[in-house]
Formats: sequence, C-alpha cells, structure tokens
Amino acid sequence: MCELLGMSANVPTDICFSFAGLMRRGGQTGPHRDGWGISFYQDKGCRSFHDPSPSAQSEIAQFIRGYSIKSRIVICHIRRANRGSVKLENTHPFIRELWGRNWSFAHNGQLRGIKKWPLSFYQPVGTTDSEHAFCWMLDRLRARWAQMPSQAPLRHAVAELASDIAARGVFNMLLSDSRSLYCFGSTALAFLTRRAPFGAATLIDEDLTVDFSRVAGSTDIVTLIATKPLTRDERWSSIAKGTLAVFRDGGMVFGTTDAEHPRHDKAA
Amino acid sequence: MCELLGMSANVPTDICFSFAGLMRRGGQTGPHRDGWGISFYQDKGCRSFHDPSPSAQSEIAQFIRGYSIKSRIVICHIRRANRGSVKLENTHPFIRELWGRNWSFAHNGQLRGIKKWPLSFYQPVGTTDSEHAFCWMLDRLRARWAQMPSQAPLRHAVAELASDIAARGVFNMLLSDSRSLYCFGSTALAFLTRRAPFGAATLIDEDLTVDFSRVAGSTDIVTLIATKPLTRDERWSSIAKGTLAVFRDGGMVFGTTDAEHPRHDKAA
Repeated sequence: MCELLGMSANVPTDICFSFAGLMRRGGQTGPHRDGWGISFYQDKGCRSFHDPSPSAQSEIAQFIRGYSIKSRIVICHIRRANRGSVKLENTHPFIRELWGRNWSFAHNGQLRGIKKWPLSFYQPVGTTDSEHAFCWMLDRLRARWAQMPSQAPLRHAVAELASDIAARGVFNMLLSDSRSLYCFGSTALAFLTRRAPFGAATLIDEDLTVDFSRVAGSTDIVTLIATKPLTRDERWSSIAKGTLAVFRDGGMVFGTTDAEHPRHDKAA
Repeated sequence: MCELLGMSANVPTDICFSFAGLMRRGGQTGPHRDGWGISFYQDKGCRSFHDPSPSAQSEIAQFIRGYSIKSRIVICHIRRANRGSVKLENTHPFIRELWGRNWSFAHNGQLRGIKKWPLSFYQPVGTTDSEHAFCWMLDRLRARWAQMPSQAPLRHAVAELASDIAARGVFNMLLSDSRSLYCFGSTALAFLTRRAPFGAATLIDEDLTVDFSRVAGSTDIVTLIATKPLTRDERWSSIAKGTLAVFRDGGMVFGTTDAEHPRHDKAA
C-alpha cells in the first residue's frame, strides 16, 4: 500500500510541514520505499517532482522541504510497489491534459483486473494498475464532454467512475483538474481543515511543531487530506467510506464525513 | 527568442556541465529571464522541472546543477517571453502522452497565426504559440497512426509537420518520444558529438572546464544540440537550415550537416 497527501487552500500555501511528516514514512517511520512524487498547482500550471528512490533518503525531497513552493492544490504520494516495478514511469502522481487543463492523479490500493478495461484516448506509460485506472477515468470523461462541464455534473461523473473502479479493490484516490481536489475514500482518507483561530500542530512522524497562528493569515483556509492523520494534536475527520469529497479553495464543497479520528496524543 | 539545449547519449549521462553554461544565459550572460524548464528521460519515464523565475537566479536550477541526474535524453529551454505571459503553464518543455509514451517539446522562435490552426485531441494549457504548435503536431501524428509506427515513417512525418509549421516563422525545435531526439533547425541549431578520444571543454558563459577523458567511459557517445555553441574549444556543427536531424543513443541517425561553426577561441 501507499500513502497519499493532498492539500486545498484559498491562498498559495507552503506544504513543507506536512510534507516533512509524510516523507519520513518513505523508508523511515513507514515502509513506503519505492519512490514518491508530488504535484504543485500554480494557477493552470502544474509542477511535479518524481523520484523512484525512497523519500526519506531522497535529495529532491530534502530540497523541496527547504524550498518553499506555495500552491493552492497539492497532490503527493509515497509508494510501496505492489503492481509495476520500481521505476520513474511508475511513480505517482500521473498527469494528463484534458480540456486544456492539467489533471493529476495518485492512488492508494490494489485493483483486480483493471488492466483489462479497454482504453481509447489515453494510454499508460508505465505498468501500474493505478495509471490504467486514471486513463480509464479520463477516457470516460472525455467521451462524455468535449469541453470542461460545470462543477455539479463533473463531480457526479467522477463519483460514479470512482465507485466503478472501487468495486475492483481498494481505491483511495486524489485527483485534481487544477481547480478542485477530488478525494475518493474507498477505505481510508482522513482530512483536517485549518482556519482562524489557528493553533500549534505537532507531527506524528517527526519531532516538529509549527504554530500556525504565527504563519497563517487570518482569512486563510487550508485543508489537508491524507491516508492517515499526520499530526498528533489536531482533530482529523474521515471521508465517509466509499464516497467522494470535493475540496475547493480550502473548503469542502461536496462530501460526507464519518466520525472523527481519535486524537493521536490521547489515543497513544 | 529563447535558447534550447538537447542531449542524446548511449549511456545515462550527467548534463550538469552544459546545463551550467545555459543557465547563465537566463538573466546573466543572456537576456532569457522569463523562466526555464528541463526534461530528463529515464527509460520511458520522464522527469521535468519548470520554473517561471530566471534560471540564473533559480534555486531549482542551482539544485539541478549540484544533483547529478543521469539521463540518455534531455531537453532544456530558457525563455524570453514573446507570446504568452511569464507563467508556469507557459514554460517549456511541454509534455503530452501519445501511444503510451511521454513526448516532450521545446521551441525557439515565433510563429504567425499558428493559434488559428484547428486542434482536436490535444489542447494547450497555457497561451504560447509553441504549445499550440506542439498540440497540432501530436494531433496530426495521432490521426495518422493508432500505435507507434516504425522509425522511418515517423521521422518522415515529423519532418513534414515541422516544415509546415516553419513556414509560419522561426521554428527551432527539440522533440522526443523517449527513444529519439528530433531536432528541427529552422534558423539555428548547432550540435557536437563527444566520443573517444575525449578531451577537455571550456564553457563560453562561465569559467568552467571539464576534462571528459577523466569522466567519460571509452565507449560513451554523447551529442549536445543547442541554439548556440556552449563551449569555446570544441568543433560544433550546424544542422542544415530548414531540415530535421534525428539523434538516437548519442549518434545522428538522420540529418544533414551545414558547415562547422568557427571555434569560439579562434573567432574571438
């Protein structure tokens, strides 16, 4: 299995703190040593970094930790290979253009038989079931609309396609079209929204605390989505299993929430 | 205008030395301060770095100079904006998937009226004439073949499409499908092949010399392609104006050469 981290914010925001926690799980506090990748959106542009080496030892990951890239949408993935060998072309996020927009996709889970599903427009470059599922989703969307549709029907279509895929196994997914962040929680996606009044947060995976009241603006809204909570002293919620949640400008615009996660400091 | 740098090699090769020279032209020894980008192929995988800030001051460029990414095909571009504002989505190389392969494209020059050419499958994300030309080329290739054709007909088609585009202005282009490096020299593309016996080379833009006899293996073959020669003490040739040259595994497999460039040290 792999780990996912996503961010949606209403102002360009630095994800370094959360990224630091996640990267430790890539071969240090976690077993996900088969590469990692991250996509940062800046307006319609998207810059991605991919590395087939373990994130905990990755020089590129070290660089990104120190180099503050501010973004309103981020998708990050650390990989433990199940299907597809450890290669650059098999590292998430996968990226394709649809309707003149950059779409990024990262997936946690395994899918049975998905590679037999026929593709027409998009073809995988690597050999993962994840990239095949992504190509299939974009194929379906493209077949349905020649141009970007409005939000509600698009959301509905993404939810339907994600449910179809999830019937084949575990499908925790982060997907973005450069405006919305679509999160399908097949078994496990936790999220947390930070807004004023801000407090301090401490990583679970590293002895690092940030006091957001010192760094965040009073109107900032930032949501983080992850396969497992990243901080020990904040209240993470779960996306209801088997459903889609959509975040835009830091807030949830669609979706259902399950019970809160126990706070790590109390549960431990 | 912009500057281009390409590499084709028969073994994974570090482009740091040439990259160092080119990056200086991005706002220091040259006026190309409107962003830069680079794509490194590793087998079918491709990792790209894009930055809308001037390369001479770019932290990402500094990092890449120090972090040795070995690759057999590289495409690099530094931008001086003529069409399209200074934004991440307007920085080359542009990347799309076709036939299950990553295609990268970078362009030097301006094209008249190209944005009126109709597109079907691929749509630009940014607003440059370059990305439009790239989308048009891939559209034509996709319309002609459902799968990757063999080398000769593909080369012929790329040459034809590039000539059509070049009729609209200046079209110095680097394009790769992860196996071949296609170079169209509309007005200016110089190239240089290094192989045994290796000697030393000194950058034009920076006081930096490398003795390749100490770093290269005896069977290494590495070709560099650039809008202007990058070293002062090596013999650069030119791709014949208005023609396509194709490099694979470090060697020219197709193309015509014009007269040699004068050596910079003698000409100066």
